[in-house]
Amino acid sequence: MNLELALRMCEAAVKQAVREGALVSVAVVDSGGHLVAFQRMDDAEISGPALASGKAYTSVAHRMPTADLAPLVAPGGELYGLAGDRYVCFGGGIPLRDSDEDRRVAGAVGVSGGTVAQDVACAEAAAELWDGV
Amino acid sequence: MNLELALRMCEAAVKQAVREGALVSVAVVDSGGHLVAFQRMDDAEISGPALASGKAYTSVAHRMPTADLAPLVAPGGELYGLAGDRYVCFGGGIPLRDSDEDRRVAGAVGVSGGTVAQDVACAEAAAELWDGV
Amino acid sequence: MNLELALRMCEAAVKQAVREGALVSVAVVDSGGHLVAFQRMDDAEISGPALASGKAYTSVAHRMPTADLAPLVAPGGELYGLAGDRYVCFGGGIPLRDSDEDRRVAGAVGVSGGTVAQDVACAEAAAELWDGV
Amino acid sequence: MNLELALRMCEAAVKQAVREGALVSVAVVDSGGHLVAFQRMDDAEISGPALASGKAYTSVAHRMPTADLAPLVAPGGELYGLAGDRYVCFGGGIPLRDSDEDRRVAGAVGVSGGTVAQDVACAEAAAELWDGV
Repeated sequence: MNLELALRMCEAAVKQAVREGALVSVAVVDSGGHLVAFQRMDDAEISGPALASGKAYTSVAHRMPTADLAPLVAPGGELYGLAGDRYVCFGGGIPLRDSDEDRRVAGAVGVSGGTVAQDVACAEAAAELWDGV
Repeated sequence: MNLELALRMCEAAVKQAVREGALVSVAVVDSGGHLVAFQRMDDAEISGPALASGKAYTSVAHRMPTADLAPLVAPGGELYGLAGDRYVCFGGGIPLRDSDEDRRVAGAVGVSGGTVAQDVACAEAAAELWDGV
Repeated sequence: MNLELALRMCEAAVKQAVREGALVSVAVVDSGGHLVAFQRMDDAEISGPALASGKAYTSVAHRMPTADLAPLVAPGGELYGLAGDRYVCFGGGIPLRDSDEDRRVAGAVGVSGGTVAQDVACAEAAAELWDGV
Repeated sequence: MNLELALRMCEAAVKQAVREGALVSVAVVDSGGHLVAFQRMDDAEISGPALASGKAYTSVAHRMPTADLAPLVAPGGELYGLAGDRYVCFGGGIPLRDSDEDRRVAGAVGVSGGTVAQDVACAEAAAELWDGV
């Protein structure tokens, strides 16, 4: 992960949010789950800094999109009880993997502020830039 | 939001609580989610400071009554897992919006201590003062 | 402690702040350190909810004015290291004691937003009401 | 505060860091202390997200540059004990004020990662853009 690419990912997510008619926050983190870039659109919710960053962190920590974590943390799921302040376990976070065969998680993008479907669409727009590198 | 109005909202909520036979705490926050006024009725629960303030904060952060968040954070809801120390996601918090066309969230009121129905009734009594400004 | 008296103490502190030309937050807590009433003057700092409440809590927890704690938590003092997010150890918090011979701490007032001298003056104005009961 | 200006402030701080030979993180927050934009330069410290954001938050919460807070929170200073996880009280945070006569704090910039002198220089480079609006 690097700042230049993280900024382009933020822009791609914001551009998608405009298309969706959503107001979102976007966070990009590195392989340690630490913030590299963050952008909150004008008038987007004040919960964005915590939730977008939380989704990105969670995507790195659990190495899967937060949307895929949702059923696992639901009652009866094997990670029931995980969701909370630290782990944000609904859609909008996507891990970003190295392109080599190890496919290590090199970072993640997290989006919050729209509906979950909108957040996911914005995060995917950002993740596409990563996959194209 | 200003202190004079926030105090009148607290009084309105307390007055409604007396009518309901409930003992409540009332919190009013500004657009940043920061406390402006708080009142806990005699013998009301010690959880009131955290819960009433949490409902008010959550109403600003997510721009909807906390009662409307409840189904979204329940198992199967799209925000399942959101509720926690930071976000209080059951009824009793109501966002307060500017009267102009932007309808920005300018603050919120949160009530805790009675049944959820009582808390909502008290918060609505407070919010009426805002809407009447 | 009761809400009616706590509100009068808040008003007394705010009135003193106006005299001092300060913008403050005032918190009154019960013997458990739990908030009973809080008021933040218009344009007072957003750190007021945490700091005024923290001074009041600390005054109950350590049974002394926070101004008296300051030298104890300084380097070389016997409580060095205590000061932090939970305990606010500079002037502006005053414990309120029962008038009987036990002199139990029944609550406290905390003020934040002005200079320390202003905060102390405002807290003392509030505490006078308690002593006069 | 708005995202477009916050991004330009981040860029100005990063540009200054390059001139200083420093690797920094930059955070811009709104009047509620909530993050609007954040950028961490490649190879800058992982403490940047917490420290740069903390300096910006502290600048809003206490309405002064964090460099001016430093002597106040030092042993013997009147706010000794304030510094902690929540308040970052050494240089690198600068509040941004409205240009009208009220001079309300509308946000802040915080920089961390270089020496304190470098952090301050980077934050000032960002704040100049605000003052020029």
